[in-house]
Amino acid sequence: MPHAPCPIPSPQSMPTSTWNRHHVLSLADFTAAEYDTVLKTAASFREVLSRRTKKVPALQGQVVANLFFEPSTRTRSSFEIAAKRLSADTLNFAAATSSMTKGETILDTAKTYLAMGTDIMVIRHKEAGVPNAIADEMDRLGVKVSVLNAGDGQHEHPSQALLDLFTICSLIDAENPRLDLLQDKKIAIVGDILHSRVARSNIWSLIASGAEVHLAAPPTLLPKFFAEYIYAEGTDIPPGKLFIHWQLEPALENADFVMTLRLQKERMTAHLLPSLREYHQLFGITRSKLQLCQPHVKVLHPGPVNRGVEISSDLMDDPEFSLIQSQVTSGVAVRMALLYLLGSGKT
Amino acid sequence: MPHAPCPIPSPQSMPTSTWNRHHVLSLADFTAAEYDTVLKTAASFREVLSRRTKKVPALQGQVVANLFFEPSTRTRSSFEIAAKRLSADTLNFAAATSSMTKGETILDTAKTYLAMGTDIMVIRHKEAGVPNAIADEMDRLGVKVSVLNAGDGQHEHPSQALLDLFTICSLIDAENPRLDLLQDKKIAIVGDILHSRVARSNIWSLIASGAEVHLAAPPTLLPKFFAEYIYAEGTDIPPGKLFIHWQLEPALENADFVMTLRLQKERMTAHLLPSLREYHQLFGITRSKLQLCQPHVKVLHPGPVNRGVEISSDLMDDPEFSLIQSQVTSGVAVRMALLYLLGSGKT
Amino acid sequence: MPHAPCPIPSPQSMPTSTWNRHHVLSLADFTAAEYDTVLKTAASFREVLSRRTKKVPALQGQVVANLFFEPSTRTRSSFEIAAKRLSADTLNFAAATSSMTKGETILDTAKTYLAMGTDIMVIRHKEAGVPNAIADEMDRLGVKVSVLNAGDGQHEHPSQALLDLFTICSLIDAENPRLDLLQDKKIAIVGDILHSRVARSNIWSLIASGAEVHLAAPPTLLPKFFAEYIYAEGTDIPPGKLFIHWQLEPALENADFVMTLRLQKERMTAHLLPSLREYHQLFGITRSKLQLCQPHVKVLHPGPVNRGVEISSDLMDDPEFSLIQSQVTSGVAVRMALLYLLGSGKT
Repeated sequence: MPHAPCPIPSPQSMPTSTWNRHHVLSLADFTAAEYDTVLKTAASFREVLSRRTKKVPALQGQVVANLFFEPSTRTRSSFEIAAKRLSADTLNFAAATSSMTKGETILDTAKTYLAMGTDIMVIRHKEAGVPNAIADEMDRLGVKVSVLNAGDGQHEHPSQALLDLFTICSLIDAENPRLDLLQDKKIAIVGDILHSRVARSNIWSLIASGAEVHLAAPPTLLPKFFAEYIYAEGTDIPPGKLFIHWQLEPALENADFVMTLRLQKERMTAHLLPSLREYHQLFGITRSKLQLCQPHVKVLHPGPVNRGVEISSDLMDDPEFSLIQSQVTSGVAVRMALLYLLGSGKT
Repeated sequence: MPHAPCPIPSPQSMPTSTWNRHHVLSLADFTAAEYDTVLKTAASFREVLSRRTKKVPALQGQVVANLFFEPSTRTRSSFEIAAKRLSADTLNFAAATSSMTKGETILDTAKTYLAMGTDIMVIRHKEAGVPNAIADEMDRLGVKVSVLNAGDGQHEHPSQALLDLFTICSLIDAENPRLDLLQDKKIAIVGDILHSRVARSNIWSLIASGAEVHLAAPPTLLPKFFAEYIYAEGTDIPPGKLFIHWQLEPALENADFVMTLRLQKERMTAHLLPSLREYHQLFGITRSKLQLCQPHVKVLHPGPVNRGVEISSDLMDDPEFSLIQSQVTSGVAVRMALLYLLGSGKT
Repeated sequence: MPHAPCPIPSPQSMPTSTWNRHHVLSLADFTAAEYDTVLKTAASFREVLSRRTKKVPALQGQVVANLFFEPSTRTRSSFEIAAKRLSADTLNFAAATSSMTKGETILDTAKTYLAMGTDIMVIRHKEAGVPNAIADEMDRLGVKVSVLNAGDGQHEHPSQALLDLFTICSLIDAENPRLDLLQDKKIAIVGDILHSRVARSNIWSLIASGAEVHLAAPPTLLPKFFAEYIYAEGTDIPPGKLFIHWQLEPALENADFVMTLRLQKERMTAHLLPSLREYHQLFGITRSKLQLCQPHVKVLHPGPVNRGVEISSDLMDDPEFSLIQSQVTSGVAVRMALLYLLGSGKT
């Protein structure tokens, strides 16, 4: 019987030669070559997503398990759609509705999905370090399963920072997004930096790009020890590249990009903030405050947005300034790239 | 380049030339040609479902997102199976278990799924008008995403009414189901009409078919203003086609089809009904009451049925009278037709 | 551009000639030929799972519905991954989050999934007999839908016992696992036997294999009437093949395999056990207690494990003794085999 060809088209050949990473847990030790490989691969997949048939057979027969011990519909959907567009099979595990973890350790749960034949585990957990611990266990067992950190406590959220990077770089050069496009750009990160895993991952990628990073928040959300922590962790932060502000204005001045962060309502009850209204007045991004920035300034937010708190409602919906929708779209391309880079190394 | 055959069989070429609709939100403005296109397309897909390999590649690479802000396993499963049989990828969003909507508006949630690359959004919400609002926003943004109303408050449930129509028309002419088969048939709709989105959608499709529609319910569930509402909304209701009864018997007399509606138990606590037992005695459909109808009468119910309330348990299970199982099967074919008609227009 | 062949390979032709079973509800009446067919088919699928593209098109276009009226992430994931690797479409129904069953009977729910076009129903329910009742109804209706019992109350859990059997037999002869490999092996089943559906299914399969089965538990979890029940149900239990112990040691002595069972914490509150610590001391499996067994002894557990209760934590993680991870992997192969054997008979 003659075999018929597969109806799913293949993408351009992907640049995997510079990729030796087996897990994606943190951006703290990402190399420039790795950033550029992710950006270039994501750009290829963005092209796939503009076709009528938005699928490639790259991971056919592989299993991507979304192990979300902390619930997140948005991130889980993004990874799920990315996996399906690579033709992988997906399994969703949601701790909230599961009876699985009773008496079991998290490592036991992960090992069960390993034993079922999972190739890539996408893990979110409210405790920092859980994805690392699972990755260590997989390595100890000598298995080929890859772990992708989809947000762990207040530690890191690498795929979010990579999609932010891809969004910005693509705006500057859509055809050829690469890390050095951000050299000397001024980028403000505004909001609940202390508690934000997104901010930590963004700081590593932006410092690596050569951008000038300005953090702005009230002192309760950006204490002095945070800067010490960053300098201790990021061994190669050059002088004149990282700035701390307890007021918004110096961070915005002549900024090229403004990254806002989601404010958890729980911070209010913990007395870290007086009120949402006051927070918005002092640190919320509005059209008038943006006049301090470069005329071409763009605003990012990882979502979901508290409208009228971190950012004014009209600004969020203004395509001239807001990259929020573009970030979501970039998220699918970047997650396809990460899954592809992790998955295609397996034999 | 010679194309090799796809491993998944294709259905007969589909009649899309009469279809220009981009969303399916309501049946109030459906044309006869549109009804017939849905019926004819669903008949083609019913043929596909009788094959061993019940799949067609029509929507391969497209994403159907089931955004169920109000939970419904039955309708969601029906749409999910329909989408999978068209080879689409599916995403399920269930508001109950989601942290997504915190601080976000429903439009923000919909726009997030848009930005992820969703092609068709199937939306259920407990408030009337939500699918319309999302469709309006999609149109305003100039994007090609289609919205399919899977039930909004007490407004409409178009796919349910279309599957009821398909079930009835297929019974009269399985090969060639079409709207004019119902011309002058007498059809009774019995039950909680006031609160039923199913009843509203059914009224529009049955009036359009030329059938004689008889509504029957106690006055609390079918107040006078309801008829005024229907006449105000349905501008083309011809005289002698719509009748209101506060007793069951005149509606059943010589009826060809009896459509029963689900009675929400909440109606009891709202003092709209004295008791389930009394309701069943007065408006529940039983074998003996059916003797008022045509001998060939058939009974429909959108499910899930409260056995012994809207319909007696033995009648529900009697294939001579009950179309309930047939409705569920029709549901998959009709939803495949709707997804196909909405999805195949995209390029 | 030359087209490559489709990447989904076909398995070796499967031994279905000895398979006439339409449902898998219980192992009490399984024949030796049926056991061997499952083992041989599972071995073929294990070979598929070792390939890069771990999929076969065997059930393409068929629908496997996981109807889990009792939640179980572990077993549901195993069936889901098995179905996807056979290229079936899957539907998940979870009673806990569903509004579907309101007012409906379980049979109504099952018939709805039947009417939607489900080919195989995988059913878990906290009440014994539910899968049988659904299978009876499907047979009464004369439809081809197969029912697979994924655990019903304290009755049976056939796929778990079959994967235990496959795990053990594969250890003895990986190339050719078959029932008679267990002839005269001594196998201990330890723990909450009275309440365990896993134990019941295991007893039938092990007795059928000719193994010597030793049950060990405190009298509250292994009352005298249990043995009477087993002898009454299992009509062909030969003498000298089934032993009851109220102490662990005689069961372990010279055992080839030790099967431990999950201890539900609820047993404590029901005063069937004094404390977890005492239970572990008396019936928990530890490295030192295993010295009573054959030197090659292996330990099984259906998971999830209460570490330090049924089995000591270090023993559980010791690949020299523990088959727990191997059981999970076997589970996917055995469930693929069961779905394949049930599904490939349909036309």
